[in-house]
Amino acid sequence: MKKILIDMLGGDYPERILEAMDKALKIDPTLEFILVGDKEKLGNRWEVIHSTDSIGSDEAPTVVRTRKESSISIAAYALRDREDCGAFVSAGNTGAVLTAATLIVGRIPGVLRPALCPSLPTLVEGVRVMIIDAGANMDSKPEYLVQFAIMGSEQMKTKGVESPRVALVNVGTEDNKGNELTAATFIQLKQAHEAGKINFVGNMEANEMMSGKYDVIVCDGFVGNILLKTAEGSFRMLMSKVKGAFRKSIFAMIGGLMSKRQLMKLRALGSSAVGGSIFIGTKKPVVKAHGSASVTALVNAILVARDAARSDLATRIEKALENKG
Amino acid sequence: MKKILIDMLGGDYPERILEAMDKALKIDPTLEFILVGDKEKLGNRWEVIHSTDSIGSDEAPTVVRTRKESSISIAAYALRDREDCGAFVSAGNTGAVLTAATLIVGRIPGVLRPALCPSLPTLVEGVRVMIIDAGANMDSKPEYLVQFAIMGSEQMKTKGVESPRVALVNVGTEDNKGNELTAATFIQLKQAHEAGKINFVGNMEANEMMSGKYDVIVCDGFVGNILLKTAEGSFRMLMSKVKGAFRKSIFAMIGGLMSKRQLMKLRALGSSAVGGSIFIGTKKPVVKAHGSASVTALVNAILVARDAARSDLATRIEKALENKG
Repeated sequence: MKKILIDMLGGDYPERILEAMDKALKIDPTLEFILVGDKEKLGNRWEVIHSTDSIGSDEAPTVVRTRKESSISIAAYALRDREDCGAFVSAGNTGAVLTAATLIVGRIPGVLRPALCPSLPTLVEGVRVMIIDAGANMDSKPEYLVQFAIMGSEQMKTKGVESPRVALVNVGTEDNKGNELTAATFIQLKQAHEAGKINFVGNMEANEMMSGKYDVIVCDGFVGNILLKTAEGSFRMLMSKVKGAFRKSIFAMIGGLMSKRQLMKLRALGSSAVGGSIFIGTKKPVVKAHGSASVTALVNAILVARDAARSDLATRIEKALENKG
Repeated sequence: MKKILIDMLGGDYPERILEAMDKALKIDPTLEFILVGDKEKLGNRWEVIHSTDSIGSDEAPTVVRTRKESSISIAAYALRDREDCGAFVSAGNTGAVLTAATLIVGRIPGVLRPALCPSLPTLVEGVRVMIIDAGANMDSKPEYLVQFAIMGSEQMKTKGVESPRVALVNVGTEDNKGNELTAATFIQLKQAHEAGKINFVGNMEANEMMSGKYDVIVCDGFVGNILLKTAEGSFRMLMSKVKGAFRKSIFAMIGGLMSKRQLMKLRALGSSAVGGSIFIGTKKPVVKAHGSASVTALVNAILVARDAARSDLATRIEKALENKG
């Protein structure tokens, strides 16, 4: 089992990271970590690579080029150079993490643009849906989106989904719907489907995202960010309204108390449902946790990194893209 | 009070429309309707303009150009030509309704593109947020979005919001975030703010849409469609999970029954929360209800049309855009 590099300086609550590591170890005692952070504070339970330079959330992503002593840069170099490192997890500046992954760890040969890929729960128990791209590339071309479809499918295959159902996020299900980008992408995805490269099932409207009918949903990074954050905001809004409803009558209040234990479990559907978004398309996997991720979400991010480190995703993607021409 | 034209042939459940009209009349007995539909079936309680030609949901929007006897076209001509008609409500083919509104009713002088504008509930009781544009224009330019900000603000002013807070939908709150369109739009919105034309409060992330901090959120039609449908899908998903949670233990089940009455009220937060989306930028208001709108949603659409018919929105918008140069 290869080791997982952990950015101890990233995110709004760095103190949660050690707790998440302990919890992840209870789930999987074979996990091994390498911490990147302040040696004086981190003890000697795990190997520590020293860094006290944290890239702030407001800093430009490109600072990773010059800030070679930042925790994000150091971890990216270690991931690239060390045979015993299998993945890197950070809750730090998203742009900086993705830039370091692309520039330092490097792209898989053939990949035009790596993409950020969260996975969400669906209405169907046990089925999760992956969004590719959820924010790494703002202005995308149809060719990028076709590669996203292929890369996302390969990732889902490593999860045991035999023929991942790929959908294109669009404003209607009819073939001719959309804006310039989605209209052009639709045609290319259909061609990739006919060539047997993906299982493209057509356009999908955003309200079907969590229906469980799709395994991989493809969109440009701007739209993916909107999808993810709208879902997060809607959950928060509705949970707050559910809470409010329990306060509206004495019956509802008692009812709320009686069902509290079960309802509390739903809180996990919010931002924690995502936990860790895997950055797909780099030679070794980098996993991004939300800056304000809960301990549960961080545990999830660590497990996403573990699974990615164990899989042969990079080789699969390289092979799948070679077959593309 | 001007009359409201009702498309009796549009939508998946035309039989709900008469019921919705009755309910709307109980709320406001001054309402008057003109029905566009089959004379033989509609009785003589209201004026009926005869049409049996319904434009199907799968037909191209441009058929309104040639199908002059379709209910949508007939209603649009009546709205344009008759002094006693104040607004038009349809649950029919969205593209056809918007095309008829633009081509037949016509744009307000100065308007580049009319936009479709639903309004959603927020976490703050009594505060609703308007999305402009939620799907009328797929590939937008910064100038369109600046006009959307101005038109949306004028609409909110007719609702009593003195200085509507305008936000641009983006992937981060920092000024330099986004794709090409939002980066260019941000600069122009800031200029419009500095010129005193709008109250632009900056970029907004999608998870803040229903926070109650914004009155008008501006985006291109593709993104607006995604925002709206993701929120709808998330509500459906979570309500289904809440229902499921009540089945997980006997305590939760009794709790669910006790709080059912209050929780049922939340169902309205789904698609019914929108009800009617007003198409802003045409000389007279056209309101689009969802094809599968509930009776409650249709009542809401009728009331949106009534308010729009009473307001001086077109005059306000014309004046606001003249001041723009």
